[in-house]
Amino acid sequence: MYRTHTCGELRLSDAKKKVTLAGWVQRTRKMGGMTFVDLRDRYGITQLVFNESVNAALCEEANKLGREYVIQITGEVSERSSKNANILTGDVEIIAETLKVLSPSAVPPFTIEDNTDGGDDIRMKYRYLDIRRNTVRRNLELRHRMTTEVRSYLDKLGFLEIETPMLIGSTPEGARDFVVPSRMNPGQFYALPQSPQTLKQLLMVAGIDKYFQIVKCFRDEDLRADRQPEFTQIDCEMSFVEQEDILEIFEGMAKHLFKVIRGVDMDKPFLRLPWIDAMKRFGSDKPDMRFGMEFVELMDILQGHGFSVFDDAKYIGGICAEGAASYTRKQLDALTDYVKKPQIGAKGMVYARVQDDGSVKSSVDKFYSQEVLLQMKDAFGAKSGDLILILSGNNAMKTRKQLCELRLKVADELGLKDKNKFALLWVTDFPLFEWSEEENRLMATHHPFTSPNIDDVPLLETHPEQVRAIAYDMVCNGIEVGGGSVRIHDSKLQDKMLKILGFTEEKAQEQFGFLMNAFKYGAPPHAGLAYGLDRWVSIMAGLDSIRDCIAFPKNNSGRDVMLDAPAALDQKQLDELNLKVDIKE
Amino acid sequence: MYRTHTCGELRLSDAKKKVTLAGWVQRTRKMGGMTFVDLRDRYGITQLVFNESVNAALCEEANKLGREYVIQITGEVSERSSKNANILTGDVEIIAETLKVLSPSAVPPFTIEDNTDGGDDIRMKYRYLDIRRNTVRRNLELRHRMTTEVRSYLDKLGFLEIETPMLIGSTPEGARDFVVPSRMNPGQFYALPQSPQTLKQLLMVAGIDKYFQIVKCFRDEDLRADRQPEFTQIDCEMSFVEQEDILEIFEGMAKHLFKVIRGVDMDKPFLRLPWIDAMKRFGSDKPDMRFGMEFVELMDILQGHGFSVFDDAKYIGGICAEGAASYTRKQLDALTDYVKKPQIGAKGMVYARVQDDGSVKSSVDKFYSQEVLLQMKDAFGAKSGDLILILSGNNAMKTRKQLCELRLKVADELGLKDKNKFALLWVTDFPLFEWSEEENRLMATHHPFTSPNIDDVPLLETHPEQVRAIAYDMVCNGIEVGGGSVRIHDSKLQDKMLKILGFTEEKAQEQFGFLMNAFKYGAPPHAGLAYGLDRWVSIMAGLDSIRDCIAFPKNNSGRDVMLDAPAALDQKQLDELNLKVDIKE
Repeated sequence: MYRTHTCGELRLSDAKKKVTLAGWVQRTRKMGGMTFVDLRDRYGITQLVFNESVNAALCEEANKLGREYVIQITGEVSERSSKNANILTGDVEIIAETLKVLSPSAVPPFTIEDNTDGGDDIRMKYRYLDIRRNTVRRNLELRHRMTTEVRSYLDKLGFLEIETPMLIGSTPEGARDFVVPSRMNPGQFYALPQSPQTLKQLLMVAGIDKYFQIVKCFRDEDLRADRQPEFTQIDCEMSFVEQEDILEIFEGMAKHLFKVIRGVDMDKPFLRLPWIDAMKRFGSDKPDMRFGMEFVELMDILQGHGFSVFDDAKYIGGICAEGAASYTRKQLDALTDYVKKPQIGAKGMVYARVQDDGSVKSSVDKFYSQEVLLQMKDAFGAKSGDLILILSGNNAMKTRKQLCELRLKVADELGLKDKNKFALLWVTDFPLFEWSEEENRLMATHHPFTSPNIDDVPLLETHPEQVRAIAYDMVCNGIEVGGGSVRIHDSKLQDKMLKILGFTEEKAQEQFGFLMNAFKYGAPPHAGLAYGLDRWVSIMAGLDSIRDCIAFPKNNSGRDVMLDAPAALDQKQLDELNLKVDIKE
Repeated sequence: MYRTHTCGELRLSDAKKKVTLAGWVQRTRKMGGMTFVDLRDRYGITQLVFNESVNAALCEEANKLGREYVIQITGEVSERSSKNANILTGDVEIIAETLKVLSPSAVPPFTIEDNTDGGDDIRMKYRYLDIRRNTVRRNLELRHRMTTEVRSYLDKLGFLEIETPMLIGSTPEGARDFVVPSRMNPGQFYALPQSPQTLKQLLMVAGIDKYFQIVKCFRDEDLRADRQPEFTQIDCEMSFVEQEDILEIFEGMAKHLFKVIRGVDMDKPFLRLPWIDAMKRFGSDKPDMRFGMEFVELMDILQGHGFSVFDDAKYIGGICAEGAASYTRKQLDALTDYVKKPQIGAKGMVYARVQDDGSVKSSVDKFYSQEVLLQMKDAFGAKSGDLILILSGNNAMKTRKQLCELRLKVADELGLKDKNKFALLWVTDFPLFEWSEEENRLMATHHPFTSPNIDDVPLLETHPEQVRAIAYDMVCNGIEVGGGSVRIHDSKLQDKMLKILGFTEEKAQEQFGFLMNAFKYGAPPHAGLAYGLDRWVSIMAGLDSIRDCIAFPKNNSGRDVMLDAPAALDQKQLDELNLKVDIKE
């Protein structure tokens, strides 16, 4: 061992001890005839002292140390005269007796400080230096603690962690697979799992009635800002359970995690919001409930007064921003521009301020009497100083989504997105299918194995779009942290589902034959869910991006800039795989 | 919840309780007016009773149940008149009141019993049925317990589990990589990791001084009987440590695992055997120490007596099989044939029996006096009834390896490979390089990042083949369960190593530039090791193959016969990946 103690360990009670420490040079300071070195490791920082008058040669060596040198020193623990109350080792320093440079360091390309001068790109290229920073390392420590807690929680409940294979078959349904050419089976490819969905269902058929796995999954998608081609899932499945059982167990797990990781007590049961209500009240299937500003529908109040925009609308709704009547015209114009951006697509925005005297002043005053406006104010429960913002449109769902964006924007501006507040809920009763404009057909909202609500089965053939799924998402602060469903365990119902989704019998057999075959041998009722670990850690860590809770993330082009991967292969490798690269211009 | 209790839970103390159970029909028996159903789940078997005279219709339904039907029943717990002491639930039965078939089952293709009638191939195709068998499920439970214990052990010591990426760069050094074409980077490929070796070293540079990960690794090799293209590693690395620290910590972990998993106390420190001694004493770098039969070198005793085979040999050595003098001529001929197999390659075998009167009778009596033979007997410490087996050859190492095969074969025949006995040791001081006949150059015995023994550094340029590595393997019952090394942390020494291994500067930079670059910014001394989890679980489970401790293994052609993967891709997928399949005849 190169050390007797870590750099975060020594206290006043250790005074007079001879110790050996090893770590990185955080900084050196020369003061008079003394040289002070801050020595850093994963556990903290300890001050070393070199005294020129005691040992000039040693002090001279210390003066030559550069930032990030790895050194080993021996010395005696001593009480500091000027203590540093900010660090746990701040009461002591080490009077150095020997010094050995274990590894010198070139000048790092950015400072190893909590607030570094390094930009994102350089930090990613030198990620091994970036991780030395407390802020990044702490995220990795948090991730470790979270997975430790999840495993221990599920183990105590009798769940078995079972590894499912990474080299499986490709299923073109859903997102794109990453594929792996097989050298031993020329012309054939494995796929990397987008999730172990079908495999965990097979484990249920196999009688493993409580399964989980913390597992890498892969999706070859065009990367948005905060997506990674490989990501980690906490994947769970149970047999002989119904939705209620899953919600109880995993609500318990979430509460446990928030308690042990963040010290937050969540006594009350999570709100359960059917999907249709979430859409009506917040315009989102993952509403951020850290703040209010629920939607108020205004068709009854605002239609029929000659304002043609509203009179022609299929939906009029608004939100009330508490205390925001002080918004300037400029701010309001900016909000209008925001909702009119093509990504959001609103046609315009109407606003109304509740004045000090309780009266309402709106941008459409010429169409509405004060009486109607007061009626509107009452509908919101608004009071003096509040700001009412209204959108309308000819497609209720689309307008609600626009209003949702407005709500989130205003919450941001008003500082309502408190990172130390956690608002969790379940969104339930998702529609089983959604219409894909792109594919021009019904697609499974979750996946093709989700069970329809039994009450809605008769609608499957006649009005599939009205069928509710027994599916649920856990939402935290406007982010879906997990989701799952009760699965179909009846091979006939599964056949029917695939038919509605446009699978021919042959194609269904080719892609999911192994599962439907398994269902013929006694499949238990089963249900499950999966959490996105990266996302969940980032919420716990108060991060905006998942990137900093991943040790070695990829950039938006799916590249690892540190490893410089992916890269071209040797011709020999391609030949062995029976492949030719064939880039079309 | 579909049940109030599992099928392994009810005891006599539960008598009179109304319960709901769900599970699989193991078997049904009709006796007089009663039908007995054994209901099975992961936790056990509970007997259900249907009485024709009480409820004829219900009994009739029970009579229709087939094997592996999934049913739900309610009923009352009742004391059994004829108890079954073999199962924990054997004192009770459930007097059934309602019965619901949750899923019928086709007749399974093999019996779901500990001793099944299903062959390997069919069991793999219907693996989800195979896992229902206690024998297979118990292996998965054991695997879960082992990983739980490993994680908890390392967590308590301050190790952080950190996920390293699966999509990395290809390094043609070593075994073949599985590769993954990148759609977003046309013509470029990721590789799946053969191990996170370089990434964990980067984590050391990053200051994470205690890392571990239980992680899937991939190797595209021609599969031998007991290899899998994807396998799981317990991967560990530490900074500021020396070999001694690693051996202590991981010896502690192994002892802990054997204690909690198998109830075996291992009080004594593991034997540490330098590689050269392991080769001399057992002809193997992973000696099976459950039994003796150490090699005795016989050059001094047996050369110079006119037996030209021995006189011309560079090595003569033998083993003494206790009590095996009763081996018949036929058995001895079979052993001779065994060592002469081309895979082993011995030229012949000499044997000698120690007779009841203490004299020695050998197959080469005409060349040796009884005096010489008694000298040989003494060298082995042999006694009456023992059998001495001798091999010779003109290459000491090759002959030792042949003698090793003979030793293992005889141990097998004598029943010395006790699966309930665990003999662990460390093999240390491996040679840093080994000569590759195939590549006609020196190769790294472990990998190019292994540190040479500091004493041997001067030999690097002159006699690299004599340089010892600071590398160690943990061996259990003749199987390498784990291995590792102290790593090079000096970029200059690393440069030199790569040069000796035949890397040009350009190629070294291309493949390992990221690591050598990292070493320029203050790399701590570090060391680590990795265990093969599949192998270790199989030893703990007393299995000969790793396959049955993997939920969904692949066959010897790397195929998953259940999923029928790998398979051909859609043309659209190939086009998107800019690939053409190009199979050469």
